[in-house]
This record gives sequence, C-alpha cells and structure tokens, in this order.
Amino acid sequence: MKTIRDPVHNLIQFDMDEERLIVDLIDTPEFQRLHHIRQLGLSFLTYPGATHTRFSHSIGVAHLMKRFLARLMDDRRSQPYAPRLSEDRMIAIAAALLHDVGHGPFSHAIEKVTDIHHEVWSRAVVTGETAITRRLEAYAKGMAQEVADVIGRTHENRAIVKLLSGQLDVDRTDYLLRDALMTGARYGALDLEWLIHALRLGTAPSRTGKDGAAAGEEVEVGLDLEKGLSIAEDFMMARFYMYQHVYLHKTTRAAELLVQHLLFRAVELAEAGELTLPPPLQAVLAARGRPEAALGAFLSLTDATLWAAFFEWRHHPDRVLGDFARRLLSRNLYKAVTCPDECPKERVYEVRHHFARKLKLPESYAMLLDNEQTTTYKDPYLLPAGGGRAAEAVRDADAEATISVYLFDREGRAKELSEASTLIAYLRGRAHPFRRIYVPAEIRDEVRQALRGT
Amino acid sequence: MKTIRDPVHNLIQFDMDEERLIVDLIDTPEFQRLHHIRQLGLSFLTYPGATHTRFSHSIGVAHLMKRFLARLMDDRRSQPYAPRLSEDRMIAIAAALLHDVGHGPFSHAIEKVTDIHHEVWSRAVVTGETAITRRLEAYAKGMAQEVADVIGRTHENRAIVKLLSGQLDVDRTDYLLRDALMTGARYGALDLEWLIHALRLGTAPSRTGKDGAAAGEEVEVGLDLEKGLSIAEDFMMARFYMYQHVYLHKTTRAAELLVQHLLFRAVELAEAGELTLPPPLQAVLAARGRPEAALGAFLSLTDATLWAAFFEWRHHPDRVLGDFARRLLSRNLYKAVTCPDECPKERVYEVRHHFARKLKLPESYAMLLDNEQTTTYKDPYLLPAGGGRAAEAVRDADAEATISVYLFDREGRAKELSEASTLIAYLRGRAHPFRRIYVPAEIRDEVRQALRGT
Amino acid sequence: MKTIRDPVHNLIQFDMDEERLIVDLIDTPEFQRLHHIRQLGLSFLTYPGATHTRFSHSIGVAHLMKRFLARLMDDRRSQPYAPRLSEDRMIAIAAALLHDVGHGPFSHAIEKVTDIHHEVWSRAVVTGETAITRRLEAYAKGMAQEVADVIGRTHENRAIVKLLSGQLDVDRTDYLLRDALMTGARYGALDLEWLIHALRLGTAPSRTGKDGAAAGEEVEVGLDLEKGLSIAEDFMMARFYMYQHVYLHKTTRAAELLVQHLLFRAVELAEAGELTLPPPLQAVLAARGRPEAALGAFLSLTDATLWAAFFEWRHHPDRVLGDFARRLLSRNLYKAVTCPDECPKERVYEVRHHFARKLKLPESYAMLLDNEQTTTYKDPYLLPAGGGRAAEAVRDADAEATISVYLFDREGRAKELSEASTLIAYLRGRAHPFRRIYVPAEIRDEVRQALRGT
Amino acid sequence: MKTIRDPVHNLIQFDMDEERLIVDLIDTPEFQRLHHIRQLGLSFLTYPGATHTRFSHSIGVAHLMKRFLARLMDDRRSQPYAPRLSEDRMIAIAAALLHDVGHGPFSHAIEKVTDIHHEVWSRAVVTGETAITRRLEAYAKGMAQEVADVIGRTHENRAIVKLLSGQLDVDRTDYLLRDALMTGARYGALDLEWLIHALRLGTAPSRTGKDGAAAGEEVEVGLDLEKGLSIAEDFMMARFYMYQHVYLHKTTRAAELLVQHLLFRAVELAEAGELTLPPPLQAVLAARGRPEAALGAFLSLTDATLWAAFFEWRHHPDRVLGDFARRLLSRNLYKAVTCPDECPKERVYEVRHHFARKLKLPESYAMLLDNEQTTTYKDPYLLPAGGGRAAEAVRDADAEATISVYLFDREGRAKELSEASTLIAYLRGRAHPFRRIYVPAEIRDEVRQALRGT
Repeated sequence: MKTIRDPVHNLIQFDMDEERLIVDLIDTPEFQRLHHIRQLGLSFLTYPGATHTRFSHSIGVAHLMKRFLARLMDDRRSQPYAPRLSEDRMIAIAAALLHDVGHGPFSHAIEKVTDIHHEVWSRAVVTGETAITRRLEAYAKGMAQEVADVIGRTHENRAIVKLLSGQLDVDRTDYLLRDALMTGARYGALDLEWLIHALRLGTAPSRTGKDGAAAGEEVEVGLDLEKGLSIAEDFMMARFYMYQHVYLHKTTRAAELLVQHLLFRAVELAEAGELTLPPPLQAVLAARGRPEAALGAFLSLTDATLWAAFFEWRHHPDRVLGDFARRLLSRNLYKAVTCPDECPKERVYEVRHHFARKLKLPESYAMLLDNEQTTTYKDPYLLPAGGGRAAEAVRDADAEATISVYLFDREGRAKELSEASTLIAYLRGRAHPFRRIYVPAEIRDEVRQALRGT
Repeated sequence: MKTIRDPVHNLIQFDMDEERLIVDLIDTPEFQRLHHIRQLGLSFLTYPGATHTRFSHSIGVAHLMKRFLARLMDDRRSQPYAPRLSEDRMIAIAAALLHDVGHGPFSHAIEKVTDIHHEVWSRAVVTGETAITRRLEAYAKGMAQEVADVIGRTHENRAIVKLLSGQLDVDRTDYLLRDALMTGARYGALDLEWLIHALRLGTAPSRTGKDGAAAGEEVEVGLDLEKGLSIAEDFMMARFYMYQHVYLHKTTRAAELLVQHLLFRAVELAEAGELTLPPPLQAVLAARGRPEAALGAFLSLTDATLWAAFFEWRHHPDRVLGDFARRLLSRNLYKAVTCPDECPKERVYEVRHHFARKLKLPESYAMLLDNEQTTTYKDPYLLPAGGGRAAEAVRDADAEATISVYLFDREGRAKELSEASTLIAYLRGRAHPFRRIYVPAEIRDEVRQALRGT
Repeated sequence: MKTIRDPVHNLIQFDMDEERLIVDLIDTPEFQRLHHIRQLGLSFLTYPGATHTRFSHSIGVAHLMKRFLARLMDDRRSQPYAPRLSEDRMIAIAAALLHDVGHGPFSHAIEKVTDIHHEVWSRAVVTGETAITRRLEAYAKGMAQEVADVIGRTHENRAIVKLLSGQLDVDRTDYLLRDALMTGARYGALDLEWLIHALRLGTAPSRTGKDGAAAGEEVEVGLDLEKGLSIAEDFMMARFYMYQHVYLHKTTRAAELLVQHLLFRAVELAEAGELTLPPPLQAVLAARGRPEAALGAFLSLTDATLWAAFFEWRHHPDRVLGDFARRLLSRNLYKAVTCPDECPKERVYEVRHHFARKLKLPESYAMLLDNEQTTTYKDPYLLPAGGGRAAEAVRDADAEATISVYLFDREGRAKELSEASTLIAYLRGRAHPFRRIYVPAEIRDEVRQALRGT
Repeated sequence: MKTIRDPVHNLIQFDMDEERLIVDLIDTPEFQRLHHIRQLGLSFLTYPGATHTRFSHSIGVAHLMKRFLARLMDDRRSQPYAPRLSEDRMIAIAAALLHDVGHGPFSHAIEKVTDIHHEVWSRAVVTGETAITRRLEAYAKGMAQEVADVIGRTHENRAIVKLLSGQLDVDRTDYLLRDALMTGARYGALDLEWLIHALRLGTAPSRTGKDGAAAGEEVEVGLDLEKGLSIAEDFMMARFYMYQHVYLHKTTRAAELLVQHLLFRAVELAEAGELTLPPPLQAVLAARGRPEAALGAFLSLTDATLWAAFFEWRHHPDRVLGDFARRLLSRNLYKAVTCPDECPKERVYEVRHHFARKLKLPESYAMLLDNEQTTTYKDPYLLPAGGGRAAEAVRDADAEATISVYLFDREGRAKELSEASTLIAYLRGRAHPFRRIYVPAEIRDEVRQALRGT
C-alpha cells in the first residue's frame, strides 16, 4: 500500500499490486514536473496560502475517481448504467491522475503566447515518447490511447468521460475543496461525504454537436433527486462564490494580465533580438505547429523557468519589460477600473490611445482589458447564455462532456438541476459578465472619468 | 483594516493606521521574494501538500506575535515583568514578520555552499540598502537596528527576544501548526487557544555565556504551571513527532543531501570552467566574505533559480551532475541504510571507498552520510546532551535565546518543564542521534552487509 | 479568568473581576436548570448527536455578545451609532446569557398545553424571587429590569436589543453553528470570523408598529456592503437549509406532534381523574393566568420530568396515552403524507373522520395535522409574505426587533439584503408553506388516496 | 441504505439488505432507551457540551467495527489470523452496537446501590424477553447467545472479542474521539484514518487466568510496528490526558460522589419509610439477586428517572438528602482536598469523625473519599502495577480480554508497545494513584490543616 498524506483527503492510498500502475506513473519525470506548476498560478498574491500544485491536485483527482467509482459500482440503482465501470477502472484512474499533465506554467498566458492548447500537450505526454507512455503500454497494449481518449472526452465509455469532465466531476470536486482550503476562502467547502453518498448514474437526452452524436439517450453522472438536491445547490453556490472571490478576484486578474503582457513583450523583444528567452520557452515557441518536436523542451518549462526569468528581467532596459517585472515582484500591480455598462468599445480604445501617449507606453501595455472571455476560469453551467457570443465562446473553447447537472428520481427519470431547483434556475439566469480595465494607479481616477465621458 | 486569509489562522488583520508599517513592509520586493522560498524546501517530495512558503509563515508569525503580546499585556500576573511590551510592540511585530527574510532557497544546502549564515543576510536586508530598511527608518529613526537586534537576539528587551526565539516562541508555534496542516501529518496539531490562554511572563535564573550576561535573573516567556502543564507536554510531543516524521524523514533527507551534493558538484564544475552557474548564484559565491556586495544578487536567488537550473542540468555531460539532477526530478533518490551502532567511522569510509570505485564515482558522491549534525532541523531542547559534541554543536550554531521551557507557579516561581513533567524529563534524556547512509538502490543490500562486516 | 470549554467556540472566558456577574449567574439553580433542557427537543430522534442543551447555547450566546460588541466598539464607522454600547455592555451580556432561561421542556408543546408563553417565564425568572434576580440587583440596582427589557425587546438601547434579537443576532448565530455541528448536518456551517469582521452599525428607516415607534430612523446591526454581501448570502442559505433539513424535518415533526398530543391526552385524562400528572406539571397547569404563583414548580419542570412520565405512561390503560408513549419510546412514529395543494380543508376533516372511526380513535389523535403555523421554528425573514395570514401570524407571535437584514455602504446608507442580493430576493419570494398529515403507518397509503380523492 | 449523521464520523451507513438487522436493533425500545443515558454521566457540570448519549456512542462503535473489520479483511498480513472474520461479521457488529445496552444512569453509582453489575443487565437485555432478543433470533437461531458471548468476552472468535474489548478496540476508539469532541478537551483527538490504516492481526503469547486458557499463542489485534508506533503512542497519550482532564476531573468526581451518596441516603430513607423512591428504582432494588425479575423496571430507569427525583428531593426535610440535591442542582459541590501522601487512613477517619460531629452530619456524608478504586474509569494498561492491590482490583473488576498493546513486525512477531516504545514504558511505570477528600467549602482549609496534622 502506497500511502500519501494529503491536507484535503487525509490518507490517499494505492494498492501496490492492483494499482501499481498509478504508483509507477506518479514516479515518472513528466508527472513529477507537476510539483513545479502551481494550481492557481498567481492567486498566491491575493491568498498567500494558495501555493498548492497540480501534483497534489492530480493525486486528489485520482483518489476521488476511486471513491466515485466505488460508490457507483455499489449503488443498486446505478448498476444498470455502469456495465463497464469495473473493467475500465484503471483507465479511469490513470486518466484522472494524468488529466492535467499537459499544463504549463500560467496556463492561459502561455497558451496565448505559444498558441498551443494544453490538451495538445496532454495528448503528447500521454501517447508520445515519454516514461508515462511506456508505463501505460507496459500495463496493457493500447492503454495510452484509451487514457488519452478519456482525457480528450472522446472515449466511448461515456460514464468515465463524464466522471472526469462533467459538471459533477472528480476534477472540479477536488479543486473546489482544495482551493477553498488553501486560499482559506472557505466558500468552496462542501460536504464531500454526502455528495458521494448521493451520486447516481442514469440516462438523459443527449445534446448533439460536440460529441458528434445525434440526439438520443446518453449515460450521465448525476445525483439522487431526494438526497442530492441540497448538496447540488451547495455545490453550485460553492462554484459561484469561488469564481467571484477567488478565480476572478480583481487583484489576481491584475497579476494574470500583467504576466500575460510581460510574456508578449518578451516575445516581441526576443524577435527584435533584444532579449534571450529561457531556452525551454524559446524552443517551445520555435515549435509552433509541431508540438511533438518540442515535447522535451515543454517538459522543462515550469513556474521556475518563468519566475527565474522575471527576476532577471527586472533589470532589462526595455521600459515595459523592466517595469512589468518589477511591478509583479513587488506586487505593485495595475489597478482595476470597472467599465460602465453603457461605455462602447470605441470609447475604451480612444481612452487607451490617449493615456498610452501620455504615459509614453505602447497602447496594449498602457491599459489591460479584462472580461469573462479573457480568462481561463469559465463556468459554462452558471453562464449558459450570458451575453450571447461570450457564452458561446466559453462553451466552444473548454467544452465539458456534459453541460447539465442531472438529478434522477426514483423511477430513474432525469431532471436538470435548474428545473428541480428554482434557486439554481435563478442563479443561472443571472448573467454576470464583467468588463474591467487595469491601469497604473496614478491614472486610475482620470481613466474612470474619461470612461464615463465626463 | 488589511485582511489576509490564511489556512492556519483564518483571518489575519492589520490595522491600516496603527499597523500600517507592517502592511508596507509586506509590499516590499524583499518580502515579496519569500513567495518563492518554500518553507520546507524539499519536503513536498514526501508530503506533496507541503508547498507553503516563508511568506505565509512570516505573516503567521507576525500575527501570533500580536496575539501573544495581547495576552501577556492583559495578564495580571505577567504585567510586572512586561513594562515595555507596549512601547516595543511594533518592533516586536516587525521583527516577527522579518525574521526569515534572509533565508535563501534550500537554506542549509546553500549555506554550506556559500559559507554565509542566513542571519547575515537577514541583518543585511533589514539594515542595508533596501526598501525594508527605508520603510523601517521612515517609521522611526533607528527602527531598523532595533528590529535587527531582536532578530539577532541581542535586543535588550529580553521578553520580546524570547517571544520570537525562545522555546515557546511565535516562530515555532506557527511552523508546527502550519507544517502539520500542510503535510497532513497532524502530529503537530496543538490547541493554540489554550496555549495562548496559559502564557505567562516570569523570571528565571539566567544562564551565562551566549547572552554575555553573568548568571542572574532574567525575564522568561513560559506557561502557567496549573493551566499549562498538559499543553506544554503536548507542544513538546508535537515537536518530537514532527522531527521524527517530517523534518528528518528518510526520503526528505535523501533529497536534501542530493541537492546539497548537486550544488557542490555544480560549484566544482563551474570552478573547472565546465558549467555556467545561474548568475545570482555565481554572484553570491563570488562575494564570499563580503555579503553586502552581493545583496542584490542574493535577493534574486530563489527556489526558481535553482529549480530552473536543475531542469537544465539534467542534460549536462558530467556524470554526477546529470545523474543527480535526473534523480531529483524523477524522485529516484538514493536509499537509506541505517548504520549499525557499533560500526566505526573508519569502516564507513572503507566501504565508501570500495563502492565509489565500483560505481566509478567520486567518493563523496557514491555514498551520502547523514546524521543529526548535518541537518538544519535541530532541537536543542529535546537533545540537550545527546551525544556530547553533537549536542554542543547544535547549541552553538543555532542558539535560541532560551534553552529552557518554564512553568510559573502561583507565587511566580519558575520550574523547568522537565522538572515539572516526568514525561518530558524522560523524553529529553532519550538520546536519539542517528546515522544514516544513502546509496544508489542497486547497491543497498551490499552496503548493508559491508557495514555489518559480514 | 473563568474558562469554559465549548465544542463550538473552543475556549469561552469570563474575567473574574469585570465579568464576575456572569460567572455568578451561571451558578444559580435557575440557570443550571438549563442543563436539563435539550436545545432541539426531539431532534435527537433524527440526528442522534443533537443532545446539546440550552445551557451551552446560552453560554455561547453570551460569548458571541462579547465578541460582537468588541468588534463594533472597535469599528470606526460603527462608533457614531454606538454611543452607549460600552456602558450597557454588562446588561447586554447578561441578557444574552439569560434570554432562554424561561424555556421549558419541548417549548412549543408545553406552551400549547399551559397557555403561557416562554417569555412570561423569562421575565418572571429575571425579575421575580430568584437567585438570578438577587445576583442582578446586587450588581446594580435596577439591573434586573434592564435585562428583562433587553430580552423583551423594549429596552431603549436599540443596538443591544437588535444584537440579541434581530436578523443578524448572537442568538441565531450561535444556534446555527451549534445545531449544525451537533446534528452533523453541516449546512449551517458559516465563517464566523468573517461575519464578525464584516459587522457594522448604521441606521435605517424604522418600521412602525410593534416597537411602538413612529416611522423614522433607527439604529440597526448590519454588515458592510462590500465585505459582507457573500457572508450574508451564506448566512441566509444556512438558515434556509437548516429549516428544511433540521428544524422542519419530517421525522422530527412527527415526534413533536406526537408529544404535543400525548400531553393533550394526559391533561384530558388528569381532568377526568384517570391519571396523576407529575407534580411540577400539575402545579404549572393549575396556575394558568397567574404564572408567578407557579414559578417554583416551573423551575422543577425539565425534560427529565416529562421523559420519566413518558416511560411510566407506556403502561397506562388508556389506548391513546399508552400507544403514543410506546410509539415515542420505540421511535415508531406516525408517518407523513403530503397534502396535495388542491385538497381543501373539508376533505382533510372528512378523511380524518373516516379513519378515526375505522381505527376507533378520537378524531384529533387519528391524524396529526402539520403546517408552518403549528411549529415554533419560523423564519419571518425568509417567509415574509408567504401565504398571507400564515406569515402574518408568524410575525406577530415571535416578532424580532428587526425584520430586515441591512448592508451599509461606504457612505453609511442602508440597503436591505434582498435589494443588494438578487439571490436573496429570490429566496424570500419563494413561498414554502407546507401541509403534512401524520398517520399510523398501516393506513398511510389509504389516506394518501383518500386525500387525492381517488 | 440507512444513513445517520454523526458529529464524529459524519455519515454512518447501514445497508438495508445486508445490515438490516442493525437497523432493526436500533429501532427497538431497549436500544432507543440509550437516548436517555448520557455517556459521561455528570461531566456536563465541568464540560457543558458533554451531553452526548450512549445511543450515539453505540452507533459509532458499530460503525467502527465495520471499518476495523474491513481493514483487517483487506490486509494481506492479517488474513492468516482472520479466517472467520467474514462469517462472524454480523455478530461482531451487533455486539458492538449492543455492548452498552445494559448501562443504567450514572453507571457506577447505580451499581454500588443495586449491587448488580451492568454486564448482568446487558446479558439479560440481549438474551432475555426483549425485542432485541427477538430480532437477533429472527436473524439466526442462537444469534442472541453469540452476541452475548462476544460482549461477555467468552466467544471463541477471539479476534472479534478483542476488537470490541481489547486495548485497541472500537469501543475505546469511539469514546476517546467522541468525548474529546464533545467536551472540547481535544486531548483525545487522534488520527483515526492512520490508526485504521496501521491495524493488524497477529498472535502473541496468551496470558492464563481470566480467559480460562492455558498459556499459549492467541490471536491479537495490534498495529504494524513500522507504521503504527507513533499512532500507538498518540493513542496512549490521548488516553492518559483524557483520564487526567476529563474522566477523573476534580469537579466531575465531586459530583459523582455526591450523586452516589445521595442515592445511598435515599435508600436509607426509603428503608426507614421516610421516602418513596421512583418506582423503577424501587423495583430494581427489590429484585437484588434476581435481576431477570426486574428487567422491565430496569428498562424504565434512565437519567430522567433520577434527575426528576433529584429536583423533587430538594424539598425533602432530611438534611442530607435535601442539601445534597440542592448542591447538585446549583452546582455547589463539595471541594477537594488532596490527601498528603504520608497521611495514614486512621488520621483520615479521625478527621472525618471530628468534622461530622461539628457539622452534625452522619460520618459518611461529611467527607467523601475518592481514590482510583472508587471510580469506574480505570485504565489497566496505564496502571498495570500501580499500587499493588488497587491495580489488582482494577484488573479483576473490568478485565479486558487483552491487557497488552501489540505491535507486529514484518515477520509477524509481536512486541508489546511498552517494549517498542520507551515513552510508553515510562508512562506505564509512572504510578498515578490519587487520594482526594471532598468536603463542604467552608471547612476546606481546616480539613487541609487537620490532615497535615498541623
């Protein structure tokens, strides 16, 4: 029995015979690399305790996959819908463990700079020339592809896909609990034991599109209508609060936008020959379009690579690069101005033009624009139609395998949570798009007035 | 009110008028740098959740200093011994916040390589040309020196010195609680509310020596004999367990020794012109003997600097450097062999000599030797006389201002904890020196036999 | 310092000089009696851990009053509205401690039988011939009346009245936390530290009526709009869930109605000379209209009196009394049938008539009717207009001093929570009246059909 | 699935098919009666939160039996020693649930008065004419006797006996956790998950005597030597602290002795025709020697019976009875004087004689004598030889099936904990007998002097 202590789940255990594969996967260099990728990127600037990594999250997700599977395999009402849970169990746990293995540092910012989605990397790590692939194939021929399919949401065992990437999935459950504990924000606290107790499988009408399937019935992970209604509401409220107070926190977003633009600037300077990028970053950029060629470099790219660079860049003569690095490292961030609802885009651009000239900064660095489209943290369930194209974009970019939360009644009929709970129906309808503009502190008041047109 | 969420203390607050200095100190680049120094260095390899930084620990220590002071100022029996607690309050809180500001990455290992003790850096940061010094001096002329004196344990307000660096101090209290939570090891859990409730000031006979004072009475931080005996025992047991299971954990020590020798090797190679060190490390090494000259470089040296280097060094042609870097990053560490009590040093060296030749490795890299002298984690209270010179060395290197734990009875008489508690007397007497030898897994059994002489 | 351990608040402390009065009040026989009154009456039949008493709740409420007062006295923005908090501090704490001292066993049921509201008893205990009154008057002449006025919500220091009996009051805060911990239901968990941190005093337009005041401005306890919005939503959700899952739990209500009717029956039999009631109950019943005459008897009436009687009544020859006692003591309760919305009262009475004859039971014992009017647990905030007269009745019977939850913005302007939070507006509007009918298990299905008219 | 919420274990679940028997046993009147027996008797006078009942404890014990069994059946090294764990599983769980079903109110005091040991009642409840017996026999013929044998420690499946009544048993584990939570004392907190993780079966030399077996090997429940040493130390320390701070707390013992003597007095008065005892108590007393005859009466005897009587007895003219009842109900207890070590018994009796005359009280009521022999709370492990006859007596009266705590090494060899842990060896050897004398507050100082012979 391999036993791992965890602040969220206390003891996490893997059997040294049956689950040997998981222990072996953990000890590969590709997985160990996750020790060096903080789960919440820059949130530690707002919540100093939030230094946890994708390593402990990934182990937590594998552990929850085991617990969710055990509950569903044991539940009489779920059994008819779960004929293959038992035989695909190791695939599911391995996929849970590896689902984030393609994440780089400051995930979203890096994706913008390199133009390579993290799922591309995940697939490369799981099926490419890596220790992980070798371990998987040694376990069973074809295993690597199966695991990649579950992560990519195309695997034909839909129950497992949804356990990993649905609305009530092991990934989300672990990160809500973990982020709540580590930030100390507590909003995310939820009664995991009851959630697991109320889990159920059933079927619901399938939506067409993404999965490539015609509308029909499809297996879904949901909750028992009687036992699960309150916990489902709780779960959604926790998500809602965590988005508001943690994931989209004003200060954290200021730091994320700063880092993103710092990287943009670095690339610009590197292209102009005025800066040498850290070799792994340089190699990854050079491999645009052919990620497999840069897999080795990518696997050397961690938070450490970039932080080491930021410390160095403080002394670079370029005004933007040096200033942004210094700002980041002394937490002297741009300040937020909330954009008035009625303010048209054109006005924003005019104002930016004006202040860029005044501050003698390139336009895109004088004011950083933020809205719900520019962040990785999206919630397609809570923002299903909020603002038309925005919501559409959210759904397309990070589509989950399931967009609904189901409650199953005694007769096995599915009800969407927002039908069963007027509270959730209400929450969902409440659009909460936002438009924030970040500017240097000294011009904040002027910008505010300029946007109001006064 | 500046409010900081913390997983250990929940809300930590600083008043924006009265305690403005603390908030300003937190936002200096020198303090923000602590976000990039993990409190437990390499423990995350054993306890994946242990990724917390010296930043959150330092804020926790400042918070506890406020709470300890408030309790003692409020306690009638303590008041006679605390005439200046109130006027030195800001000095005490600032010192608590800044006490670790001179720590570099992998503290002990770096000290061995650079030959500069972390306290030297702390003093330089607090009194040198830094934003921290400017903030302190702007608050009150001479403040920087006062804070440095408290950190250096030479300040004449002994109560404050002991609150920060005694046996029942705010530093230790925070790290036991924080390390216990983050590792999930739980042994360190203790009832903070009761500990604070039982706190008391009194006097006890002063030991001579270190403090330069002749024997006499000196103010001490202790506990109420009636209320505090059980919590004192609990506190000592928590320390004892944390040393055993966390600080001196076999696997963690394997990693620490690996990193230490990785750095030794890097320096050797750099001196031989076969490796370019990361610039901040290079600068710090070049400044041996004149740390002030390298302060800027030191302040750029974080965990990130070294981890980025380790990832790079994996590909270096030197057998030791490349191998050790790869071992570290795939958690394929040397394995421990416990040295038999009767095994003389000479035998160890012989065995090492033998296996170094066999493995074709330089002697000092073929087997890594560990004992209670080679680690930063020492406990002069629990190991007061354990093994003669070893214990002596411990006391000298990291001397606390107070070596005793006092309990005060109703009449204000001090009793040393080990006199009041036979349990603690027992624990203290129990010498627990250890000798471990770390070797590549494939020769472990052979080494074990060789040491036994069989 | 008197220190009391508490599972909710950990250490509760009262200063032996300044707060001596509180310690003395705790050790009176009238207050010690609360050890024998369970806070949640019969909830232990649903949640076996819910055995906590009004004693520990009352001490928790006094403790929270101290914490709420300390926060408000310390808060700059609240200070203008709190000129007398400091001088009335002991009155407030004593009132908090004593607010439940007039509660008898199974509060609501006993009130129905004796026709004396528990506030009448509270006033008698605080101002009558009791050790409590003596202690209060020894502390300060007129103190007993002041404390009674705060409990009765007529005291002119409105801030203190509202801290004890408002919508964000110390009573509710303690019981939500305590009931959540002890039931294990967890829904009531809320972040007490943040709640206290966000507390504020301000003014809001006064409602007329109950307080006898013309409309005008009145001091109110509320939360800071920026810091407190999420915690206010959390608090309301916790209340909402606790009502649903604990206070109005189907099984608990079954037991409460059973006990109420058991007592009705006992009184009927006693009046007919067929049963001797326990002397304290007999004396209290005999004193209808002149409670002061029965104060001594009332103070002997605890859960123990009634449970001892129930154990005895199991063997009584009366069919109803014996059966109900046996049912209660083997947890073989009547079962709930939910009354269809469209089912008119007349139908219910007809059905009852039919089954009473069939079971050969008096009508009122054959079916027990439950709705939101028959329970003590009401929430005038969440059910402000739900169902016309019902809500009206709720407001009259247990009027709180304040019916609104206020959030104060930077300029001190009050916003009602349901204006600031669309979530709460929504929740409030959601009427959740209920009609349940409890019947013997064996006729449940027949009753269900009969009510549907099928 | 029957789901019970519990403050200690969160969700406790019993399968409605497989474990139906347990659910049915819970709903018998004999088991429901445990709702009215507080687990810690009078401890609520010291720790107001300690109102939990034998009902929730018993359910917790059944739950832990399931968890311990599951772990041991799953542990490869334990399997050879556990051939029948699986087939006797329901016997073990039922015995765990029912092990306290024979406890009356204030267990020890009642035993002294009635001269019937609680195990006699347990056996009667489990095998007599009760609903419990009927349920057990309906499940399987002979089941009642099997369960009684496990509770009585004579069952031939020694592993199960020891899981319920050993040194590392489910009973003790639940009560340490539960009492720690409810008192708020926290000393008893221990890491249950790790304890279960470290559990192991093995064999150890059997002691002769009690079990009627000749010395030989016997199966034992213990811990893995490597994983379990620290948790075993923790467990023993928790026991040690709970005894010191909760079970033998000075104030609690004062109340227990008061109640015991109150009952003695009541019996004396009843025999003299001056008091009518509550009928269930009267019936139980009358049945001395023939408990089965009084089983019905015993099952009506709960905390409620006695508390109702105490409230009534306050007004009785007998000086002792009235005074003791009033003292108890206003928490005005006798105060403790610690008897000097050198004070001979004769002196104590002389002093008592003197003060009895002075206070005009019967001798046995003027001073109440306490030592480790007069309490139910004994710990034969921690006090194995402490004080000769005392320890002997302890062992005889409440003999556990196992007197040792075993650690099993890799080869399955048993080590006694005190051999493996010098800490525990030390703790065990430390005799902590105590002699306290309780007297009215007003003569405390005089008694103290008189005992010192000054």
